[in-house]
Amino acid sequence: MDRPKIKTIAFDADDTLWENEPLFVDTQSKCEELIRSYGDAEDLHDKLYEVEMRNLRLFGYGVKGFTLSMIETAIEMTQGRITADDIHKIVQLGKQMLDHPIELLPHVRETLISLKLSCELMIITKGDLFDQESKIARSGLSEWFDRVEIVSEKDPETYSKVLKRHGITPSSFLMVGNSLKSDVLPICEIGGHAVHVPFRTTWVHEQIHSIDHPDGYGVVDDLGELTGYVENHFELVPNGRN
Amino acid sequence: MDRPKIKTIAFDADDTLWENEPLFVDTQSKCEELIRSYGDAEDLHDKLYEVEMRNLRLFGYGVKGFTLSMIETAIEMTQGRITADDIHKIVQLGKQMLDHPIELLPHVRETLISLKLSCELMIITKGDLFDQESKIARSGLSEWFDRVEIVSEKDPETYSKVLKRHGITPSSFLMVGNSLKSDVLPICEIGGHAVHVPFRTTWVHEQIHSIDHPDGYGVVDDLGELTGYVENHFELVPNGRN
Repeated sequence: MDRPKIKTIAFDADDTLWENEPLFVDTQSKCEELIRSYGDAEDLHDKLYEVEMRNLRLFGYGVKGFTLSMIETAIEMTQGRITADDIHKIVQLGKQMLDHPIELLPHVRETLISLKLSCELMIITKGDLFDQESKIARSGLSEWFDRVEIVSEKDPETYSKVLKRHGITPSSFLMVGNSLKSDVLPICEIGGHAVHVPFRTTWVHEQIHSIDHPDGYGVVDDLGELTGYVENHFELVPNGRN
Repeated sequence: MDRPKIKTIAFDADDTLWENEPLFVDTQSKCEELIRSYGDAEDLHDKLYEVEMRNLRLFGYGVKGFTLSMIETAIEMTQGRITADDIHKIVQLGKQMLDHPIELLPHVRETLISLKLSCELMIITKGDLFDQESKIARSGLSEWFDRVEIVSEKDPETYSKVLKRHGITPSSFLMVGNSLKSDVLPICEIGGHAVHVPFRTTWVHEQIHSIDHPDGYGVVDDLGELTGYVENHFELVPNGRN
Protein backbone atom coordinates (compact mmCIF):
# COMPACT_ATOMS: atom_id res chain seq x y z
CA MET A 1 0.00 0.00 0.00
CA ASP A 2 1.24 3.47 -0.78
CA ARG A 3 2.39 5.43 2.20
CA PRO A 4 0.87 8.90 2.62
CA LYS A 5 2.99 11.66 1.08
CA ILE A 6 4.05 14.29 3.63
CA LYS A 7 5.28 17.69 2.47
CA THR A 8 5.28 19.56 5.78
CA ILE A 9 6.10 18.36 9.29
CA ALA A 10 5.07 20.79 12.04
CA PHE A 11 6.32 20.62 15.62
CA ASP A 12 4.72 21.88 18.75
CA ALA A 13 7.38 23.77 20.75
CA ASP A 14 6.80 23.73 24.56
CA ASP A 15 7.57 20.26 25.97
CA THR A 16 8.12 18.93 22.44
CA LEU A 17 11.26 20.81 21.40
CA TRP A 18 12.21 22.21 24.80
CA GLU A 19 11.29 21.92 28.48
CA ASN A 20 8.40 24.09 29.58
CA GLU A 21 5.95 22.51 32.02
CA PRO A 22 8.70 21.75 34.60
CA LEU A 23 9.38 25.51 34.73
CA PHE A 24 5.71 26.17 35.57
CA VAL A 25 5.76 23.38 38.19
CA ASP A 26 8.96 24.73 39.73
CA THR A 27 7.60 28.29 39.82
CA GLN A 28 4.38 27.05 41.39
CA SER A 29 6.42 25.34 44.16
CA LYS A 30 8.27 28.57 44.87
CA CYS A 31 4.98 30.45 45.03
CA GLU A 32 3.58 27.77 47.34
CA GLU A 33 6.58 28.13 49.66
CA LEU A 34 6.02 31.88 49.78
CA ILE A 35 2.31 31.52 50.61
CA ARG A 36 3.04 28.83 53.23
CA SER A 37 4.63 31.47 55.48
CA TYR A 38 1.10 32.93 55.83
CA GLY A 39 -0.50 29.59 56.75
CA ASP A 40 -1.76 26.61 54.81
CA ALA A 41 -0.78 26.46 51.15
CA GLU A 42 -1.58 22.84 50.49
CA ASP A 43 -4.39 23.29 48.05
CA LEU A 44 -2.50 25.95 46.11
CA HIS A 45 -2.42 23.73 43.02
CA ASP A 46 -6.20 23.40 42.90
CA LYS A 47 -6.80 27.02 43.79
CA LEU A 48 -4.32 28.30 41.20
CA TYR A 49 -5.82 26.08 38.53
CA GLU A 50 -9.28 27.38 39.42
CA VAL A 51 -8.09 31.00 39.13
CA GLU A 52 -6.27 30.26 35.85
CA MET A 53 -9.39 28.71 34.34
CA ARG A 54 -11.51 31.62 35.55
CA ASN A 55 -9.05 34.04 33.88
CA LEU A 56 -8.48 32.05 30.69
CA ARG A 57 -11.20 33.93 28.81
CA LEU A 58 -9.38 37.21 29.45
CA PHE A 59 -5.72 36.18 29.67
CA GLY A 60 -5.36 33.26 27.28
CA TYR A 61 -2.29 31.06 27.71
CA GLY A 62 1.18 32.19 28.66
CA VAL A 63 3.50 33.32 31.43
CA LYS A 64 2.13 36.86 31.92
CA GLY A 65 -1.41 35.63 32.49
CA PHE A 66 -0.03 32.85 34.72
CA THR A 67 1.83 35.44 36.80
CA LEU A 68 -1.28 37.59 37.22
CA SER A 69 -3.21 34.46 38.24
CA MET A 70 -0.49 33.56 40.80
CA ILE A 71 -0.81 37.06 42.27
CA GLU A 72 -4.61 36.76 42.50
CA THR A 73 -4.35 33.30 44.04
CA ALA A 74 -1.80 34.46 46.62
CA ILE A 75 -4.00 37.42 47.61
CA GLU A 76 -7.10 35.23 47.89
CA MET A 77 -5.36 32.39 49.77
CA THR A 78 -3.84 34.77 52.33
CA GLN A 79 -7.11 36.74 52.67
CA GLY A 80 -5.21 39.83 51.62
CA ARG A 81 -2.48 39.43 54.25
CA ILE A 82 0.36 38.93 51.76
CA THR A 83 2.75 41.89 51.69
CA ALA A 84 3.55 43.99 48.64
CA ASP A 85 7.15 42.77 48.83
CA ASP A 86 6.02 39.16 48.58
CA ILE A 87 3.78 40.03 45.65
CA HIS A 88 6.80 41.65 44.05
CA LYS A 89 8.60 38.32 44.49
CA ILE A 90 5.81 36.66 42.50
CA VAL A 91 6.25 39.23 39.71
CA GLN A 92 9.97 38.38 39.75
CA LEU A 93 9.15 34.66 39.49
CA GLY A 94 7.19 35.44 36.34
CA LYS A 95 10.07 37.46 34.92
CA GLN A 96 12.49 34.65 35.64
CA MET A 97 10.26 32.30 33.64
CA LEU A 98 10.29 34.72 30.70
CA ASP A 99 14.07 34.95 30.85
CA HIS A 100 14.78 31.30 31.57
CA PRO A 101 17.36 29.59 29.35
CA ILE A 102 15.82 27.28 26.77
CA GLU A 103 16.70 23.66 27.45
CA LEU A 104 16.26 21.61 24.31
CA LEU A 105 14.90 18.11 24.79
CA PRO A 106 17.11 15.15 23.76
CA HIS A 107 17.48 14.37 20.04
CA VAL A 108 15.92 17.66 18.86
CA ARG A 109 18.83 18.86 16.75
CA GLU A 110 19.62 15.52 15.07
CA THR A 111 15.93 14.96 14.32
CA LEU A 112 15.48 18.36 12.70
CA ILE A 113 18.69 17.94 10.70
CA SER A 114 17.64 14.59 9.29
CA LEU A 115 14.01 15.53 8.54
CA LYS A 116 14.98 18.87 7.04
CA LEU A 117 16.70 17.00 4.21
CA SER A 118 13.43 15.44 3.13
CA CYS A 119 10.65 17.93 3.68
CA GLU A 120 9.59 21.32 4.93
CA LEU A 121 9.58 21.99 8.70
CA MET A 122 7.26 24.24 10.66
CA ILE A 123 6.56 25.26 14.25
CA ILE A 124 2.98 25.63 15.47
CA THR A 125 2.93 26.74 19.07
CA LYS A 126 0.29 28.12 21.41
CA GLY A 127 0.68 30.95 23.88
CA ASP A 128 1.98 34.44 24.26
CA LEU A 129 3.23 35.87 20.95
CA PHE A 130 6.15 37.84 22.37
CA ASP A 131 7.32 35.09 24.74
CA GLN A 132 7.07 32.35 22.11
CA GLU A 133 8.99 34.41 19.54
CA SER A 134 11.63 35.10 22.16
CA LYS A 135 11.91 31.40 23.01
CA ILE A 136 12.20 30.38 19.37
CA ALA A 137 14.96 32.96 18.89
CA ARG A 138 16.78 31.87 22.07
CA SER A 139 16.45 28.18 21.18
CA GLY A 140 18.81 28.68 18.24
CA LEU A 141 16.48 26.53 16.12
CA SER A 142 14.90 29.25 13.95
CA GLU A 143 17.01 28.46 10.91
CA TRP A 144 15.62 24.92 10.69
CA PHE A 145 12.04 26.05 10.26
CA ASP A 146 10.52 27.29 7.02
CA ARG A 147 7.36 28.50 8.71
CA VAL A 148 6.40 29.55 12.24
CA GLU A 149 2.86 30.03 13.52
CA ILE A 150 2.01 31.21 17.03
CA VAL A 151 -1.66 30.68 17.78
CA SER A 152 -3.90 31.50 20.74
CA GLU A 153 -5.75 28.16 20.70
CA LYS A 154 -5.06 24.77 19.13
CA ASP A 155 -8.41 23.52 17.90
CA PRO A 156 -9.47 22.07 14.53
CA GLU A 157 -10.73 25.47 13.34
CA THR A 158 -7.41 27.19 14.06
CA TYR A 159 -5.39 24.43 12.41
CA SER A 160 -7.64 24.55 9.33
CA LYS A 161 -7.13 28.29 9.02
CA VAL A 162 -3.36 28.02 9.45
CA LEU A 163 -3.01 25.24 6.86
CA LYS A 164 -5.25 27.10 4.42
CA ARG A 165 -3.23 30.29 4.86
CA HIS A 166 -0.03 28.39 4.06
CA GLY A 167 -1.55 26.48 1.16
CA ILE A 168 -0.96 23.14 2.91
CA THR A 169 -3.33 20.19 2.32
CA PRO A 170 -4.12 18.36 5.59
CA SER A 171 -3.43 14.97 3.98
CA SER A 172 0.16 16.08 3.23
CA PHE A 173 0.67 17.47 6.74
CA LEU A 174 2.12 15.81 9.84
CA MET A 175 1.98 17.37 13.30
CA VAL A 176 4.33 16.26 16.08
CA GLY A 177 3.69 17.17 19.70
CA ASN A 178 3.35 16.17 23.32
CA SER A 179 -0.30 17.07 23.82
CA LEU A 180 -2.97 14.66 22.61
CA LYS A 181 -5.56 17.37 23.17
CA SER A 182 -3.77 20.19 21.34
CA ASP A 183 -1.33 18.59 18.89
CA VAL A 184 -2.84 15.26 17.90
CA LEU A 185 -6.62 14.97 18.06
CA PRO A 186 -7.52 18.24 16.29
CA ILE A 187 -5.17 17.28 13.45
CA CYS A 188 -6.80 13.85 13.09
CA GLU A 189 -10.14 15.62 13.04
CA ILE A 190 -9.23 17.77 10.04
CA GLY A 191 -7.76 14.87 8.09
CA GLY A 192 -4.08 15.40 8.85
CA HIS A 193 -1.48 13.04 10.30
CA ALA A 194 -0.03 13.25 13.79
CA VAL A 195 2.63 11.69 15.98
CA HIS A 196 2.31 11.90 19.75
CA VAL A 197 5.57 12.29 21.71
CA PRO A 198 4.50 12.14 25.36
CA PHE A 199 6.41 14.37 27.79
CA ARG A 200 6.98 13.33 31.39
CA THR A 201 4.78 16.13 32.77
CA THR A 202 1.48 17.31 31.32
CA TRP A 203 -0.44 20.34 32.57
CA VAL A 204 -3.79 19.20 33.95
CA HIS A 205 -5.58 21.43 31.39
CA GLU A 206 -3.98 19.40 28.58
CA GLN A 207 -4.65 15.99 30.15
CA ILE A 208 -7.19 13.70 28.56
CA HIS A 209 -8.12 10.78 30.75
CA SER A 210 -10.42 8.76 28.62
CA ILE A 211 -10.61 9.38 24.93
CA ASP A 212 -12.44 7.74 22.14
CA HIS A 213 -9.68 8.58 19.72
CA PRO A 214 -9.67 8.09 16.00
CA ASP A 215 -7.07 5.93 14.36
CA GLY A 216 -4.38 7.50 12.36
CA TYR A 217 -1.87 8.85 14.77
CA GLY A 218 1.36 7.32 15.92
CA VAL A 219 3.16 7.38 19.24
CA VAL A 220 6.92 7.46 19.82
CA ASP A 221 8.69 7.48 23.18
CA ASP A 222 10.93 10.40 22.35
CA LEU A 223 12.08 12.48 19.40
CA GLY A 224 15.00 10.06 18.86
CA GLU A 225 12.47 7.61 17.42
CA LEU A 226 10.67 10.11 15.24
CA THR A 227 12.78 9.98 12.08
CA GLY A 228 12.57 6.17 11.95
CA TYR A 229 8.85 6.21 12.57
CA VAL A 230 8.24 8.85 9.92
CA GLU A 231 10.38 7.05 7.33
CA ASN A 232 8.51 3.81 7.95
CA HIS A 233 5.03 5.27 7.74
CA PHE A 234 5.24 8.13 5.27
CA GLU A 235 6.85 9.21 2.06
CA LEU A 236 8.51 12.58 2.55
CA VAL A 237 8.33 15.04 -0.32
CA PRO A 238 10.98 17.79 -0.36
CA ASN A 239 10.26 21.47 -0.84
CA GLY A 240 6.56 20.86 -1.04
CA ARG A 241 4.91 24.22 -1.20
CA ASN A 242 1.40 23.01 -1.97
CA MET B 1 1.57 60.24 -14.53
CA ASP B 2 0.29 56.80 -13.66
CA ARG B 3 -0.91 56.42 -10.11
CA PRO B 4 0.61 53.52 -8.14
CA LYS B 5 -1.50 50.35 -8.28
CA ILE B 6 -2.59 49.17 -4.82
CA LYS B 7 -3.80 45.61 -4.32
CA THR B 8 -3.86 45.45 -0.51
CA ILE B 9 -4.71 48.12 2.05
CA ALA B 10 -3.71 47.21 5.61
CA PHE B 11 -5.01 48.98 8.70
CA ASP B 12 -3.44 49.28 12.09
CA ALA B 13 -6.12 48.51 14.71
CA ASP B 14 -5.58 50.27 18.08
CA ASP B 15 -6.35 54.01 17.74
CA THR B 16 -6.85 53.59 13.99
CA LEU B 17 -10.00 51.43 13.88
CA TRP B 18 -10.98 51.73 17.54
CA GLU B 19 -10.11 53.66 20.70
CA ASN B 20 -7.22 52.23 22.69
CA GLU B 21 -4.80 54.75 24.17
CA PRO B 22 -7.58 56.60 26.10
CA LEU B 23 -8.26 53.31 27.91
CA PHE B 24 -4.61 53.11 29.00
CA VAL B 25 -4.66 56.77 30.06
CA ASP B 26 -7.89 56.29 32.02
CA THR B 27 -6.55 53.16 33.75
CA GLN B 28 -3.35 55.00 34.60
CA SER B 29 -5.42 57.77 36.24
CA LYS B 30 -7.29 55.23 38.35
CA CYS B 31 -4.00 53.64 39.38
CA GLU B 32 -2.62 57.08 40.23
CA GLU B 33 -5.64 57.80 42.42
CA LEU B 34 -5.10 54.54 44.24
CA ILE B 35 -1.40 55.25 44.86
CA ARG B 36 -2.14 58.84 45.94
CA SER B 37 -3.75 57.51 49.15
CA TYR B 38 -0.22 56.38 50.15
CA GLY B 39 1.36 59.77 49.47
CA ASP B 40 2.64 61.54 46.41
CA ALA B 41 1.72 59.99 43.07
CA GLU B 42 2.51 62.92 40.83
CA ASP B 43 5.37 61.40 38.89
CA LEU B 44 3.48 58.13 38.35
CA HIS B 45 3.45 58.70 34.59
CA ASP B 46 7.22 58.95 34.36
CA LYS B 47 7.82 56.14 36.81
CA LEU B 48 5.36 53.82 35.07
CA TYR B 49 6.89 54.56 31.70
CA GLU B 50 10.34 53.83 33.12
CA VAL B 51 9.14 50.47 34.51
CA GLU B 52 7.35 49.64 31.23
CA MET B 53 10.49 50.32 29.20
CA ARG B 54 12.59 48.27 31.64
CA ASN B 55 10.13 45.37 31.23
CA LEU B 56 9.60 45.70 27.48
CA ARG B 57 12.34 43.19 26.70
CA LEU B 58 10.49 40.54 28.74
CA PHE B 59 6.83 41.54 28.44
CA GLY B 60 6.51 43.05 24.97
CA TYR B 61 3.44 45.21 24.30
CA GLY B 62 -0.03 44.61 25.65
CA VAL B 63 -2.39 44.86 28.60
CA LYS B 64 -1.04 41.94 30.67
CA GLY B 65 2.51 43.30 30.66
CA PHE B 66 1.12 46.80 31.35
CA THR B 67 -0.78 45.44 34.37
CA LEU B 68 2.33 43.72 35.76
CA SER B 69 4.26 46.98 35.25
CA MET B 70 1.52 48.94 37.07
CA ILE B 71 1.80 46.51 40.00
CA GLU B 72 5.59 46.88 40.10
CA THR B 73 5.33 50.66 39.89
CA ALA B 74 2.76 50.81 42.69
CA ILE B 75 4.95 48.63 44.94
CA GLU B 76 8.04 50.71 44.22
CA MET B 77 6.28 54.10 44.58
CA THR B 78 4.74 53.15 47.94
CA GLN B 79 7.99 51.55 49.16
CA GLY B 80 6.10 48.31 49.63
CA ARG B 81 3.35 49.88 51.74
CA ILE B 82 0.53 49.19 49.28
CA THR B 83 -1.87 46.50 50.54
CA ALA B 84 -2.65 43.25 48.78
CA ASP B 85 -6.24 44.41 48.35
CA ASP B 86 -5.11 47.51 46.51
CA ILE B 87 -2.82 45.39 44.32
CA HIS B 88 -5.84 43.22 43.61
CA LYS B 89 -7.64 46.37 42.46
CA ILE B 90 -4.82 46.95 39.95
CA VAL B 91 -5.24 43.39 38.64
CA GLN B 92 -8.96 44.16 38.26
CA LEU B 93 -8.13 47.34 36.32
CA GLY B 94 -6.13 45.19 33.90
CA LYS B 95 -9.01 42.75 33.53
CA GLN B 96 -11.43 45.59 32.87
CA MET B 97 -9.18 46.76 30.05
CA LEU B 98 -9.18 43.28 28.53
CA ASP B 99 -12.95 43.14 28.73
CA HIS B 100 -13.66 46.71 27.68
CA PRO B 101 -16.22 47.22 24.90
CA ILE B 102 -14.65 48.10 21.58
CA GLU B 103 -15.51 51.63 20.52
CA LEU B 104 -15.05 52.05 16.79
CA LEU B 105 -13.69 55.38 15.63
CA PRO B 106 -15.86 57.54 13.35
CA HIS B 107 -16.18 56.54 9.67
CA VAL B 108 -14.63 53.08 10.14
CA ARG B 109 -17.52 51.04 8.77
CA GLU B 110 -18.28 53.25 5.77
CA THR B 111 -14.58 53.40 4.87
CA LEU B 112 -14.13 49.64 4.98
CA ILE B 113 -17.31 49.10 2.98
CA SER B 114 -16.24 51.45 0.21
CA LEU B 115 -12.62 50.28 -0.01
CA LYS B 116 -13.55 46.61 0.18
CA LEU B 117 -15.26 47.00 -3.21
CA SER B 118 -11.97 47.89 -4.86
CA CYS B 119 -9.20 45.92 -3.19
CA GLU B 120 -8.15 43.49 -0.52
CA LEU B 121 -8.20 44.61 3.13
CA MET B 122 -5.89 43.51 5.93
CA ILE B 123 -5.24 44.23 9.60
CA ILE B 124 -1.67 44.45 10.90
CA THR B 125 -1.67 45.11 14.61
CA LYS B 126 0.94 44.95 17.35
CA GLY B 127 0.49 43.54 20.83
CA ASP B 128 -0.80 40.61 22.76
CA LEU B 129 -2.02 37.84 20.44
CA PHE B 130 -4.96 36.72 22.58
CA ASP B 131 -6.14 40.24 23.42
CA GLN B 132 -5.84 41.48 19.83
CA GLU B 133 -7.75 38.48 18.47
CA SER B 134 -10.42 39.05 21.08
CA LYS B 135 -10.69 42.73 20.14
CA ILE B 136 -10.94 42.00 16.43
CA ALA B 137 -13.71 39.47 17.15
CA ARG B 138 -15.54 41.88 19.47
CA SER B 139 -15.20 44.76 16.99
CA GLY B 140 -17.53 42.97 14.59
CA LEU B 141 -15.18 43.94 11.75
CA SER B 142 -13.60 40.52 11.06
CA GLU B 143 -15.67 39.85 7.97
CA TRP B 144 -14.24 42.91 6.19
CA PHE B 145 -10.67 41.70 6.36
CA ASP B 146 -9.12 39.13 4.04
CA ARG B 147 -5.98 38.82 6.14
CA VAL B 148 -5.07 39.49 9.76
CA GLU B 149 -1.54 39.66 11.17
CA ILE B 150 -0.74 40.20 14.83
CA VAL B 151 2.92 41.01 15.30
CA SER B 152 5.12 41.64 18.32
CA GLU B 153 6.99 44.60 16.80
CA LYS B 154 6.32 46.91 13.84
CA ASP B 155 9.68 47.47 12.21
CA PRO B 156 10.78 47.23 8.56
CA GLU B 157 12.04 43.66 9.07
CA THR B 158 8.71 42.45 10.46
CA TYR B 159 6.71 44.16 7.70
CA SER B 160 9.00 42.65 5.04
CA LYS B 161 8.48 39.17 6.47
CA VAL B 162 4.71 39.61 6.69
CA LEU B 163 4.40 40.90 3.12
CA LYS B 164 6.65 38.13 1.81
CA ARG B 165 4.62 35.49 3.62
CA HIS B 166 1.44 36.82 2.03
CA GLY B 167 3.00 37.20 -1.41
CA ILE B 168 2.41 40.96 -1.38
CA THR B 169 4.78 43.32 -3.22
CA PRO B 170 5.56 46.44 -1.14
CA SER B 171 4.89 48.73 -4.12
CA SER B 172 1.31 47.40 -4.32
CA PHE B 173 0.75 47.75 -0.56
CA LEU B 174 -0.73 50.65 1.41
CA MET B 175 -0.63 50.83 5.21
CA VAL B 176 -3.00 53.07 7.16
CA GLY B 177 -2.41 53.91 10.81
CA ASN B 178 -2.10 56.46 13.57
CA SER B 179 1.54 55.88 14.45
CA LEU B 180 4.22 57.49 12.31
CA LYS B 181 6.80 55.34 14.06
CA SER B 182 5.03 52.01 13.69
CA ASP B 183 2.62 52.31 10.77
CA VAL B 184 4.13 54.83 8.38
CA LEU B 185 7.93 55.17 8.42
CA PRO B 186 8.82 51.44 8.36
CA ILE B 187 6.51 51.00 5.36
CA CYS B 188 8.15 53.89 3.50
CA GLU B 189 11.50 52.31 4.31
CA ILE B 190 10.61 49.02 2.60
CA GLY B 191 9.16 50.72 -0.48
CA GLY B 192 5.48 50.57 0.40
CA HIS B 193 2.85 53.32 0.61
CA ALA B 194 1.38 54.73 3.79
CA VAL B 195 -1.29 57.11 5.01
CA HIS B 196 -1.01 58.64 8.45
CA VAL B 197 -4.29 59.16 10.34
CA PRO B 198 -3.26 60.98 13.53
CA PHE B 199 -5.18 60.08 16.69
CA ARG B 200 -5.81 62.65 19.41
CA THR B 201 -3.62 60.79 21.94
CA THR B 202 -0.32 59.09 21.22
CA TRP B 203 1.58 56.97 23.74
CA VAL B 204 4.92 58.61 24.47
CA HIS B 205 6.72 55.49 23.22
CA GLU B 206 5.17 56.02 19.79
CA GLN B 207 5.84 59.74 19.64
CA ILE B 208 8.42 61.07 17.21
CA HIS B 209 9.42 64.64 17.85
CA SER B 210 11.75 65.42 15.05
CA ILE B 211 11.93 63.24 12.04
CA ASP B 212 13.75 63.40 8.82
CA HIS B 213 11.00 61.55 7.04
CA PRO B 214 11.02 60.30 3.50
CA ASP B 215 8.45 61.52 1.04
CA GLY B 216 5.74 59.23 -0.08
CA TYR B 217 3.20 59.10 2.68
CA GLY B 218 -0.02 60.97 2.98
CA VAL B 219 -1.85 62.41 5.94
CA VAL B 220 -5.61 62.62 6.45
CA ASP B 221 -7.42 64.13 9.42
CA ASP B 222 -9.65 61.14 10.00
CA LEU B 223 -10.78 57.94 8.30
CA GLY B 224 -13.69 59.82 6.69
CA GLU B 225 -11.14 61.37 4.33
CA LEU B 226 -9.31 58.15 3.53
CA THR B 227 -11.40 56.84 0.63
CA GLY B 228 -11.19 60.17 -1.21
CA TYR B 229 -7.45 60.42 -0.60
CA VAL B 230 -6.84 56.87 -1.76
CA GLU B 231 -8.95 57.29 -4.90
CA ASN B 232 -7.08 60.47 -5.80
CA HIS B 233 -3.62 59.07 -5.29
CA PHE B 234 -3.78 55.40 -6.19
CA GLU B 235 -5.36 52.96 -8.58
CA LEU B 236 -7.04 50.19 -6.60
CA VAL B 237 -6.83 46.70 -8.04
CA PRO B 238 -9.48 44.22 -6.85
CA ASN B 239 -8.75 40.72 -5.62
CA GLY B 240 -5.04 41.19 -6.04
CA ARG B 241 -3.39 38.14 -4.60
CA ASN B 242 0.12 38.79 -5.83
